[in-house]
Amino acid sequence: MPNKRKVAILGATGAVGQRYIQLLQGHPWFEIEVIAASERNAGKKFKDAANWLMTTEIPKEIAEMSVVNTDVTSVEKAGKVDLVFSSLPGGLAGTTEAEFGAQYPVFSKASAHRMDPDVPLIIPEINPDHTELIKVQQKQRGWKGFITTDPNCSTIGLAITLAPLMQFGISQVMVTTMQALSGAGYPGVASLDIVDNVIPFISGEEDKMETEALKILGSLDGTSIKNANFKLSASCNRVNVKDGHLESVFVKLDNEPSLEEVEEAFTNFKGAPQKLKLPSAPVQPIIIRHEENRPQPRYDKDAACGQAVVVGRLRKDPIMTLKYMCLSHNTIRGAAGGGILSAELYVAKGLA
Amino acid sequence: MPNKRKVAILGATGAVGQRYIQLLQGHPWFEIEVIAASERNAGKKFKDAANWLMTTEIPKEIAEMSVVNTDVTSVEKAGKVDLVFSSLPGGLAGTTEAEFGAQYPVFSKASAHRMDPDVPLIIPEINPDHTELIKVQQKQRGWKGFITTDPNCSTIGLAITLAPLMQFGISQVMVTTMQALSGAGYPGVASLDIVDNVIPFISGEEDKMETEALKILGSLDGTSIKNANFKLSASCNRVNVKDGHLESVFVKLDNEPSLEEVEEAFTNFKGAPQKLKLPSAPVQPIIIRHEENRPQPRYDKDAACGQAVVVGRLRKDPIMTLKYMCLSHNTIRGAAGGGILSAELYVAKGLA
Amino acid sequence: MPNKRKVAILGATGAVGQRYIQLLQGHPWFEIEVIAASERNAGKKFKDAANWLMTTEIPKEIAEMSVVNTDVTSVEKAGKVDLVFSSLPGGLAGTTEAEFGAQYPVFSKASAHRMDPDVPLIIPEINPDHTELIKVQQKQRGWKGFITTDPNCSTIGLAITLAPLMQFGISQVMVTTMQALSGAGYPGVASLDIVDNVIPFISGEEDKMETEALKILGSLDGTSIKNANFKLSASCNRVNVKDGHLESVFVKLDNEPSLEEVEEAFTNFKGAPQKLKLPSAPVQPIIIRHEENRPQPRYDKDAACGQAVVVGRLRKDPIMTLKYMCLSHNTIRGAAGGGILSAELYVAKGLA
Amino acid sequence: MPNKRKVAILGATGAVGQRYIQLLQGHPWFEIEVIAASERNAGKKFKDAANWLMTTEIPKEIAEMSVVNTDVTSVEKAGKVDLVFSSLPGGLAGTTEAEFGAQYPVFSKASAHRMDPDVPLIIPEINPDHTELIKVQQKQRGWKGFITTDPNCSTIGLAITLAPLMQFGISQVMVTTMQALSGAGYPGVASLDIVDNVIPFISGEEDKMETEALKILGSLDGTSIKNANFKLSASCNRVNVKDGHLESVFVKLDNEPSLEEVEEAFTNFKGAPQKLKLPSAPVQPIIIRHEENRPQPRYDKDAACGQAVVVGRLRKDPIMTLKYMCLSHNTIRGAAGGGILSAELYVAKGLA
Repeated sequence: MPNKRKVAILGATGAVGQRYIQLLQGHPWFEIEVIAASERNAGKKFKDAANWLMTTEIPKEIAEMSVVNTDVTSVEKAGKVDLVFSSLPGGLAGTTEAEFGAQYPVFSKASAHRMDPDVPLIIPEINPDHTELIKVQQKQRGWKGFITTDPNCSTIGLAITLAPLMQFGISQVMVTTMQALSGAGYPGVASLDIVDNVIPFISGEEDKMETEALKILGSLDGTSIKNANFKLSASCNRVNVKDGHLESVFVKLDNEPSLEEVEEAFTNFKGAPQKLKLPSAPVQPIIIRHEENRPQPRYDKDAACGQAVVVGRLRKDPIMTLKYMCLSHNTIRGAAGGGILSAELYVAKGLA
Repeated sequence: MPNKRKVAILGATGAVGQRYIQLLQGHPWFEIEVIAASERNAGKKFKDAANWLMTTEIPKEIAEMSVVNTDVTSVEKAGKVDLVFSSLPGGLAGTTEAEFGAQYPVFSKASAHRMDPDVPLIIPEINPDHTELIKVQQKQRGWKGFITTDPNCSTIGLAITLAPLMQFGISQVMVTTMQALSGAGYPGVASLDIVDNVIPFISGEEDKMETEALKILGSLDGTSIKNANFKLSASCNRVNVKDGHLESVFVKLDNEPSLEEVEEAFTNFKGAPQKLKLPSAPVQPIIIRHEENRPQPRYDKDAACGQAVVVGRLRKDPIMTLKYMCLSHNTIRGAAGGGILSAELYVAKGLA
Repeated sequence: MPNKRKVAILGATGAVGQRYIQLLQGHPWFEIEVIAASERNAGKKFKDAANWLMTTEIPKEIAEMSVVNTDVTSVEKAGKVDLVFSSLPGGLAGTTEAEFGAQYPVFSKASAHRMDPDVPLIIPEINPDHTELIKVQQKQRGWKGFITTDPNCSTIGLAITLAPLMQFGISQVMVTTMQALSGAGYPGVASLDIVDNVIPFISGEEDKMETEALKILGSLDGTSIKNANFKLSASCNRVNVKDGHLESVFVKLDNEPSLEEVEEAFTNFKGAPQKLKLPSAPVQPIIIRHEENRPQPRYDKDAACGQAVVVGRLRKDPIMTLKYMCLSHNTIRGAAGGGILSAELYVAKGLA
Repeated sequence: MPNKRKVAILGATGAVGQRYIQLLQGHPWFEIEVIAASERNAGKKFKDAANWLMTTEIPKEIAEMSVVNTDVTSVEKAGKVDLVFSSLPGGLAGTTEAEFGAQYPVFSKASAHRMDPDVPLIIPEINPDHTELIKVQQKQRGWKGFITTDPNCSTIGLAITLAPLMQFGISQVMVTTMQALSGAGYPGVASLDIVDNVIPFISGEEDKMETEALKILGSLDGTSIKNANFKLSASCNRVNVKDGHLESVFVKLDNEPSLEEVEEAFTNFKGAPQKLKLPSAPVQPIIIRHEENRPQPRYDKDAACGQAVVVGRLRKDPIMTLKYMCLSHNTIRGAAGGGILSAELYVAKGLA
């Protein structure tokens, strides 16, 4: 991999954009060439445009870079890029990502195109073959580039734990989430709303969880995705925690595996990123904790540099088959870290 | 009701004991005669023995009262009492409450005797007829007094919302709780454990929820309780909120009522406390909120002085029949307020 | 006081505006006639325009009122008003309050006019005679109405505790504040910025504290205010607390009163609101706590319905003369409650 | 430094003991040989005895080590040690540390011996020469070993910032602290006491700050320490933050340096650890931030691996000379990290 791919980050000043910048420091395959944000910030130095939220310092060379406006012309004027990471806010993402997708590989964290039939929704450990869908997309749209998407932050942790259970025949999944503040971006949730409180609602989140997981765990059927054949119900809550989405999961399986078999399935779960030794791949995508009170956001969100999902409290369920808790870092595995892993997959497969 | 009943409070210095003291101020039927706590505090003035956690001041006459040791002899030496409220910690409650029960009506918040076949487990709106079980208990144990119990704080809110759904044939209930810190007593949860965190475990809590609700919603079958015929699965979490247990509930009903029918059932639900106009009864035990983001601990825990359960986000479930959120004040309706309401029921029925 | 004064609230949808609405319910002298807010909200029902933050419900008749734009014409079209409470944001307040002041008595919580030489800056217990300045103002500006202002929320608690110390000759005051989130309005401080954190900066706050206190404690010298003759230094911090500004105060006094003399001065401090028995006056403006760990926001912010300042940890200082902690509710005494008390003073004096 | 010193940690299961264990992993000069704790935990494996609070995992070899009781006999039976780190709780530390000090170099975080005239109170950058006091101590007490102490966690950050100001003639220091929860140990502060609250009191803390700084900044006068000649007044508060003590400081200096001169003094401040290149020495003991809202616990506590003090908001004071904020990690620089740095100093000087 002698030449690093040059990347542009769209939405670079936001909370997820900042995480992309942080995680791409020293990346062996990618280097940041252009940082783009809204018109309001175009022309400013990054350090003046962003309210930096990471606990590491702004990388020096990024701090001094000029932010450009989020359009193809401005980005191309600022540098020659090979691929694009987009963490644009919902409304804007639809058309802007399409504009870039016509020319460039676009790795998107936005929800706009996730459910488009010709757009892959990728978790590299689960459905690496769905990347083939970009060929359908390029043909249909007449594009040189493509759009590929990553799931919603609360979907990712859950879906990774469901993947190894597919062999036992999943029929029903019920999940209640306790999601972190950083999932709402910045400024996001007002402190007055959340101090000494829980907010039992996140706009659009339950619908995303209930549909995305079925596409991710579905199968590529020639030129389209056939959804997985189970039902999912979600209830989403915001809690007063900075990072780390914790989820309480109940699963009904057609077969009745023992807890040992389930644990073995979780522990042995590996996918393309592990086989291909992608730079951002966790050695083990699912880590099991046996303490009675784990996973906890504080202690488990950074497992495998935030790229693993931590499962705990695995137990038999009196109604369904299993219940367990899972936790993943919502702005690493659930956003920028997941996006980078997807891009690594495409590169390793020669698709980007 | 010309003469007020004189009451003793066991465990008076604890978080729930303090709530009893607060709520009994100016109560029309009860007055505090004796406050008892552990040996360590016996002999001290209440104001010196308790780390007062209520935001109202310690009532003046209570502040100066002497705390006595928690045994029948000490309590009787301190005053003549008609009935006893116990908020003793688990280990101690078993034998001590039995000692008092032989002589006095004991209203217990402890879990020790909840599942004893001859001990009522009462939510006054739901199973006021279960109070009859004390006659079996008195006969079997040869007691002049009796023990009656209140459910666990996380069970109470849930069970009240299940009661009006019984008519539709409940077959399955799955619940994930987000429970407040005050549920763990004082000092309870260390701040270092919960700041910027969630703890996905509360010792013994899931088992209590999964068994108690079936007894409460069961039927008195001559001399014993026949459990309700459905299954319940719970997943319990501690969140960084002072007061107010929030629960995410999924329910499967044999019949398929419309959301309007369910809402009507919730809104119209009344029980013995409302019919008997008990002093601590909420006008409406269940309050429905239609905002998309309620109930929230901050805004809803004090509904009807903390004696009502607030339900929100009532919606069809893609797998079960319904899903909704419910919230109740864990140290009012879920503890001292519920205990006082139980005692009022017994008094109104001439049983205490 | 047979006829209630009809009032308009400017900035009614904001955090302080909401507090005005809450506190004016059932007020014996004032009733809300018009609620005004920004153009964006004009024409909406209040309940649809405001993100209601009070833990009591929106008063029913207010919920259904139409919000009007914040200009004299719109307000006059909506109703006949006798006086105006303004909680407009900084930028807007300057010209808009002047527009209203030409016709109406305007009671302002904004900082725009506080330091105008002909505008009173009132804490009713301290400087009720400064109200006379409105006559100078009306003459100079040719107005029928007037503007009178209330100090910044962090100034009010401090100034009330300094007033009774003036008799001992204050020469220096150093204060470090720990201010609540609600002081920043809504949405105000982002939760991501404050969870597990302290922010040691509040824009403009130190300057306000260092200048306002001297005007308030100054004396009316014919037609202008002569500042009090001491120095004040402030260091302002935002902490993760919803309501209640806590301040650590060090004071140097020319005389060397004993702690008993100081405590007596605090306890006996009364002013015009107490003498005139104004409806919102706390019986005692300063309440002393003797516990070693008070005042605390949780327990003390609501003292005297949030209208008193609570002082604790009064002790000799090894460098200055005294040190102590003081706490006041920043949106009651420090904002809407203080504003209403000022208006009561003007009414009682026949000035409004 | 061919042979590593073998160390025992007293109070190893506590919050500070755990930090010692974490920070000593891979230390080039020290290795953990014995871990001692209270009798209750003696005999248990460390992983079963400690409620591990660090976000890194328990080091594997420590997890399996047996905890021994905190007395010389038990420790010597468990292994041959060269020096001892003590993070014993107050009451116990006095006699136990003396028992060990008779034989071993004891580096103590406890307050028991800090103000003993023959015991050094060391901040290696400030008073490395005070280590000589151990010779007086050994002679007077007839000991082979010695006790040397580290200051209180809230003193350390402050004192490091005062050291470079000594050249300008400090006459007065007033400080208000906002201290983190971990400073109270584990379980320490109850969550019920601190959620949505500030506690304006920490037992004994103000007295420690007011006396220790003068000893540290004092001079070794033959066989005793002559205190620094200025006055200090402290007001100490506990805020809802996990780690990082933030302090608001006002300083009066005899000379009137410009802000530039002060900033230069802070930035250039170096001491023995930097000159001797001790393994745990921060390159720069004081780091200046120029943002208007720093230092903040979240972003600044881990500066230089938690070994630096971060200063911000440096400004002229209208009464004293300067005001500024400083922040240091209370369990790293303020406890275990400071203790290890002290031990490194003694080793480098050939004293241990």
